[in-house]
Parts: sequence; structure tokens; C-alpha cells
Amino acid sequence: MERVWIEDIGRYADRDVEIRGWLFNKRSSGKVRFLVVRDGTGFLQVVMVKGEVPDEVFNLYDELTYEDAIIVRGKVKREKRAPGGYELLLKDLVIHSKSLDTFPIPKVRPENIPDVGKLFRFRHLWIRSRKQWSILRIRDEVERAIQDFFAARGFRRFDPPIFTPASVEGTTTLFPVPYFDEGEVYLTQSGQLYLEAGAMALGKVYSFGPTFRAEKSRTRRHLTEFWMVEPEVAWATLEDIMDLAEELVVYITERVLENRRMELEILNRDVAKLEAVKRPFPRITYDEAARILLEEKEKGRDIDFTYGEDFGSDEETVISERYDRPVMITHYPRAIKPFYMKPDPKDPSKVLCVDVIAPEGYGEIIGGSQREDDYEELLRRIREEGLPEDEYSWYLDLRKYGSVPHSGFGLGIERTVAWLSGASHVREVIPFARTPERIRP
Amino acid sequence: MERVWIEDIGRYADRDVEIRGWLFNKRSSGKVRFLVVRDGTGFLQVVMVKGEVPDEVFNLYDELTYEDAIIVRGKVKREKRAPGGYELLLKDLVIHSKSLDTFPIPKVRPENIPDVGKLFRFRHLWIRSRKQWSILRIRDEVERAIQDFFAARGFRRFDPPIFTPASVEGTTTLFPVPYFDEGEVYLTQSGQLYLEAGAMALGKVYSFGPTFRAEKSRTRRHLTEFWMVEPEVAWATLEDIMDLAEELVVYITERVLENRRMELEILNRDVAKLEAVKRPFPRITYDEAARILLEEKEKGRDIDFTYGEDFGSDEETVISERYDRPVMITHYPRAIKPFYMKPDPKDPSKVLCVDVIAPEGYGEIIGGSQREDDYEELLRRIREEGLPEDEYSWYLDLRKYGSVPHSGFGLGIERTVAWLSGASHVREVIPFARTPERIRP
Repeated sequence: MERVWIEDIGRYADRDVEIRGWLFNKRSSGKVRFLVVRDGTGFLQVVMVKGEVPDEVFNLYDELTYEDAIIVRGKVKREKRAPGGYELLLKDLVIHSKSLDTFPIPKVRPENIPDVGKLFRFRHLWIRSRKQWSILRIRDEVERAIQDFFAARGFRRFDPPIFTPASVEGTTTLFPVPYFDEGEVYLTQSGQLYLEAGAMALGKVYSFGPTFRAEKSRTRRHLTEFWMVEPEVAWATLEDIMDLAEELVVYITERVLENRRMELEILNRDVAKLEAVKRPFPRITYDEAARILLEEKEKGRDIDFTYGEDFGSDEETVISERYDRPVMITHYPRAIKPFYMKPDPKDPSKVLCVDVIAPEGYGEIIGGSQREDDYEELLRRIREEGLPEDEYSWYLDLRKYGSVPHSGFGLGIERTVAWLSGASHVREVIPFARTPERIRP
Repeated sequence: MERVWIEDIGRYADRDVEIRGWLFNKRSSGKVRFLVVRDGTGFLQVVMVKGEVPDEVFNLYDELTYEDAIIVRGKVKREKRAPGGYELLLKDLVIHSKSLDTFPIPKVRPENIPDVGKLFRFRHLWIRSRKQWSILRIRDEVERAIQDFFAARGFRRFDPPIFTPASVEGTTTLFPVPYFDEGEVYLTQSGQLYLEAGAMALGKVYSFGPTFRAEKSRTRRHLTEFWMVEPEVAWATLEDIMDLAEELVVYITERVLENRRMELEILNRDVAKLEAVKRPFPRITYDEAARILLEEKEKGRDIDFTYGEDFGSDEETVISERYDRPVMITHYPRAIKPFYMKPDPKDPSKVLCVDVIAPEGYGEIIGGSQREDDYEELLRRIREEGLPEDEYSWYLDLRKYGSVPHSGFGLGIERTVAWLSGASHVREVIPFARTPERIRP
């Protein structure tokens, strides 16, 4: 009898198969007993009919407790009412290993229990629940979609270093690491500077890896360890990478809608909201976004914003409410953006940058810019910011030897997955979230 | 005129195109002048014929120096003798930006210059050279091949945490990181324990990310920061993951042979050696491998090995010499392997593990095992090793709630790329290598 995974069961209709998994749930209805078996790739309803299986197998039902490891064998049947469209008519059941204790996570709506800390203490088991399982499968789909997207466009993967001597944007939120005779190095917050070197060597590159931020923030948008994808393209302008960002976000959304329908249903995600994510995205300037905020303030909304400041998450939410899809905000004031962004030739008080704000209050998912490509201008900015010139000499070299316009952006994986899956906190969209308070398990 | 990338030029034969890139090389031959232009996706020969381009364009040739950013326009011509099979018949040339200084890396065989330190100081520019470019493109192919391999087999990507409280294999080679009120956490050396939790939740999982080792080793096989892929499969035995490892290595090799021929040629890689990498790989036990070493020692070879010890890189090389493809060594003594490996029921002094040794002296590329799945036995081993029981309580839970056989392995990206590309040192196969002595640029 062939052993198959639940995810593939549609290919085995009317055939006998073996499934290895765990007891997720069970219920009895007179002569018929139902098991829900999960094997990590899906959930399957298994039907035991008295008289159709040996009595000693039928009676095993009473022994079964949550998360027992079991092997079930039987015939695959199309069944419209069963979740997934198939069920297994049981012929044989083997209990491979019993749970040694009562499963500590409630089977029904674990997310609703009052003690959220308990869920995170048992994260290694909580991920077996339907909702967490669904979120992690959406994360996988998003991550693979991203890599497929860049592969199809001829981007080369380029892994920037994690240990870095200098910082892109100040050292206050960096994690220092003692490093041999070097003293201290820092965990990367962005691979961008290295990716710029990569773009000059390989044309179109992207990174996909963890980045770190030592922020004692308690908002539901922050983790100390999070994953980013960062494309960087030689000869590309701000416009070019805005198009790229738009295509990427639409592509990811389509892939999730196409391949993770069941998971979105389990999560009660309003898919209409995702189906609205089509090109073109609205494109507004910082000034226009600021005007929206001032309008809303005049209407009496509690908005703490002064022109010239960066938008906080509350402001991002107010702006995003006006649109049914992600909104791109460009041309922020130079004073609030990093030194490497290229000023707008038409208004040098602004820079050629873009932030993409997700709908429904999920905040900034992308930040990008055209990079300063003039050697003298970049050097001036490094000095102006009081940055260590020595540490940036290699970065300046990229403008010394055949400088070209180039642009790139970073997309935050957790915020993107949180938005697409409708999760309430980024802590739930990564297998083992790291926050200032939690590094276990 | 359409702007295209050199990699795609075959689709534009006999058409006028624009290429944006850098001057890689030039030579003059009477009335014909040749430029080699690189744009990051490839190298293209550009032909300037006096009289066929305006004189002011023809005369720009004299001004051109290495790595000037240039835009060339002209007709794509099939030309067998040209590297890549195509050349560009120049119609127009624009110098976008001149190099401000002499390019510090020699254009011809930079790898042969005596001052290797200089090459690494200029790593951000060195990666523009043909060989380093080729190696990094092979790395990209290997990385994408791995992800495609696991995607096609229904594996879900599962990102284990980088910050970890406890260690898998002792703390001597861990990087500690000060972490808020937590004191210290450590940078991961392997995501395996977390991936085991993932396999119980998602069935088949894999990670792809950086791992860290604070080893002051100076061998040509070590970095402090390196990338690993780690699959973990529920219900899989040692045999199952040996088959998986074999399939993976063959698939990666085939992808590189299929898509990176030109790069292998640039690197003078003996492709016959890679074409020999076919299933089945030889499978020998530790005892058999030890016998090989003792035989070679008797023949007078300088081998420092005692039965019961682990193999060092010299021993790995001696063993691998007997085979034309990777060799799988199984059943190492329990005493030299970590606590989580399952003892062989037939001989409990050995464990159900496998190391895959690459040919040609490139050493261990894969290490894996079947994991101990018995709660009491695992607890006994944790106590025997004096490991902090508290820190492993979550890991023990995986054996408490429906324990199943499961297995996995880790493949080192850098060693694999070094082997396939024939690189002499793992430092060259990652964009910016980190060693105890080098963290810049």
C-alpha cells in the first residue's frame, strides 16, 4: 500500500493509501467514528464504520488522545462535505506512539485563550494548530514566490555579510558582537551597501536573509530578528524600482491567492481585500501624504504629525485607509532619510525614495530609493553626517570606478506575511519570534 | 532602440540594441577596434570599424579606461569566434562616467598576484573580475537549485531563529551576543532542533540561512559566517535522508552543468569530474572508512588517525580519493557524535548518521542523522552530557507528544560551491567572506 502525504491525496482517489501523521481531533456518531488526522501537509477526515473494520481496530478509537502518532490505511473517497474534498475510509489503524501527557495547547481556537504567553512558551507545539500552520504555509509561499519572481527576471542571489563593521543608519539599534581581536562588530540591519557593490558586478542582485534591530519596541510590528529581501539594480532609477516593487507585491499576492486558498479560509482572511491588490498602486508624494494627515486632523482626528517629520505607524494607517491597495509614498524630506539617498534634482530638499504602505493598517512593507551616485556629493554627505570616512572608502569606490545610477529596496517578510494572512502580530508569522522579552524556546 | 542585458542578447540577433555597462577591456587592430563590455550579466565583444561610426565616436576609444561606465548601441551579430557566440557592431558609444582613478585590481589573472590580502581589501571591486563573477553566478545557481529542489518535493521553508539560548554542540565555538535583560544569547550554529519542531508541524521542512562558528581556524575550509540548507523530515529514516541527500547533490551538480557551462570554462573547471557525479554514491561505514585509512597508513602514507576518532580534513581527502563521486560514510562511533543522534539498534556503540564527503579534497559537504525519538533515551543522553535540562524541555516535548522517527541533514553552501567551481578557498565563494582576521569591507 503506497504511503502518501495528505497534500497529494487528490491524486489517489478510489485507491488504498497509507497516511502517517498525528491525531488532530476525533468525534463519534453512533456506528460511525471520525478522526481528523494531520501529517504536516494537510488535515484529513478519516471515517471508521463499525463492522467494516475489525473490532479491535474500531475499539482503538477510545484509546486515542490528541497528538498520538498514528498510521492509518484505507481507501481515498471524494467527499464534498469533507474539508479538502476527500476523506479516507479506514481499513486499518496503528498507534505508533501515544502522547505521554495531555497536549498543553487547546485544540479549539487556541488564539483565544487569555494567557498568550503560554502559547509562545509552547510555540514548538502551537505551530501544529490550524491557524499557525496556515500562517507558516503562507510564509513559505511568500518566500518561494519572492525567489521565483527574481529568478524569472534574471536577478542573481547575492548574500551580503551578517557581521558588519559600520552601520548604515547609526549604531543605537545595532547588536554588537565581540569578535576576536577586532573588538566589536555589528549584526546587519540591511545588506544594501554590499548589494550596491553586487549590482555593479552582477547587474541585478537580491539578498534574502535575516536582519537585526536592537530596539526595545513593544509594538506589534517589531521583532529583534526579521527577514528581508533586498533587490538592487544597476542603471535603475527610482521609477524603475517602483515598477519592480509594484510587480513584486502583486505577484506575491496572486501566488498566495492561487496556492493558499484553504489556509486563507482557515484564517478567515477577507480575500476580496487581497483580490483588490492590482496594478497600478496609487503613487503620492510625501507632501500629498502630509496633506491627507492635516485634512484628517482638521476633521478632528487625533493625529500627532508636524510637516517635515517621518510618518509613524498611526499616520501610515490613516494614509492607507484612503486606498484599497498598497500606496507608494515618494520624495520624503532629505533631513529624515539616510545619507545614501539621491536628492531630487528638481527639489534637493527631497530625496528620490519610496515607501510602500500596506492596506488595513499593516504599515510599511517596502522602503527603497535611488542611491547617490556622485562621488563628491556622497563624500560631502558622509562628512556632513559625521560618519567614519575610512569605513566608507570602499562604498565610495563604487562611485569612483564607473559610477552609474542605481536603485533598490527592501521588503520586510514578516510585515508582508502578517498583512496577507491577516495576522494580528508579526510574532505569529515567523516560526520562533525573537523580541526583547522572548528568546525561548 | 531597445535596451537589453548581455545575458539575453541571443534573442536579438540582427537587431539594434543598447547595452549599458562598463569597459572591461579593449584592443586595437588597425582600422578595427574591439571593446569588451560587461554589464553584470555577461561580457560582450563590441566592434568599432573606422568609417562605419562617426569619427568622434571612433576616437572615444583612446579616452576609454578600465571600468568606465559606458552605453553602447549597435547591431547584434552572430559570431562563432566571439566569447558567448555574439558580438555587437558598434553604431554609437556614450561615456556615461569616467573612472576617477586607475582600477586597483589587475585585469588579467588577478588571482595570480602575490598580494592576496590586496584582493580581499578590494573585494567590492574584485567581484567584477571574470573568475569571481563566475564563482558568484555558480553560487546563485546552486542556491536557486536547492530551493527549486525542495519546492518540487513539497518541502516548506521554515526559518529557525538566529538568536538561540542554548547550544546544540557545546558553547566553545559560539558567538555570544548581549541581549537586553537576558544576559547573553548565541548566534545559531544550526537550526536543526527548531527544524525538528517544524517537521512535526509541517511534515517536510527546510531552512536556508546563515550560521556562525567562532573558530580561530585558518584552514581553507572555514569561515566564521557561512550558509547552510537543512532539511528535516517527519517519519524519515537514515536511509530516506541518504537518498534525499544523494538526489540533492546530483540535482545541484546537473543544474550547474546545464546552466553555468561558460562560467565553469572561465574557471578552467574539469567538467568531466562533475559529469561523473551520478547516483548511486558509494556508501561505506565508519569502520570501512577507518580500514581505508589504516591500509593507506601501512602503505607508508603520513596519516595521523586512531580508530574511534573523528576524521580530519586530511583523512577525508584520503578516503575520497578512492571514488569519482561523493562518498557517504555512515555509522560513526556514538562517542564522537552529538547527543541527539539515534544509536544503531544493531550496534548501539554506533549512531545512525551520515557524512557526505566531496571528491577532490573538498571535504565534508553534508552531515546528517536519524534523531533520537525515544523520550527516556533522549533525556538520559542530555543528562549524560551534562546539558541544561531546562533549556531542552521544549525539545523533549517533541518526543512527548506523538514522537515519530525523523531525520535530516545540513549541507554547507560554501563547501559545495567551492567544490563545484573548483575554487581554492571558501573565502572566494561568498560575496564578502568573514574570517577571524577579516571583516572589511
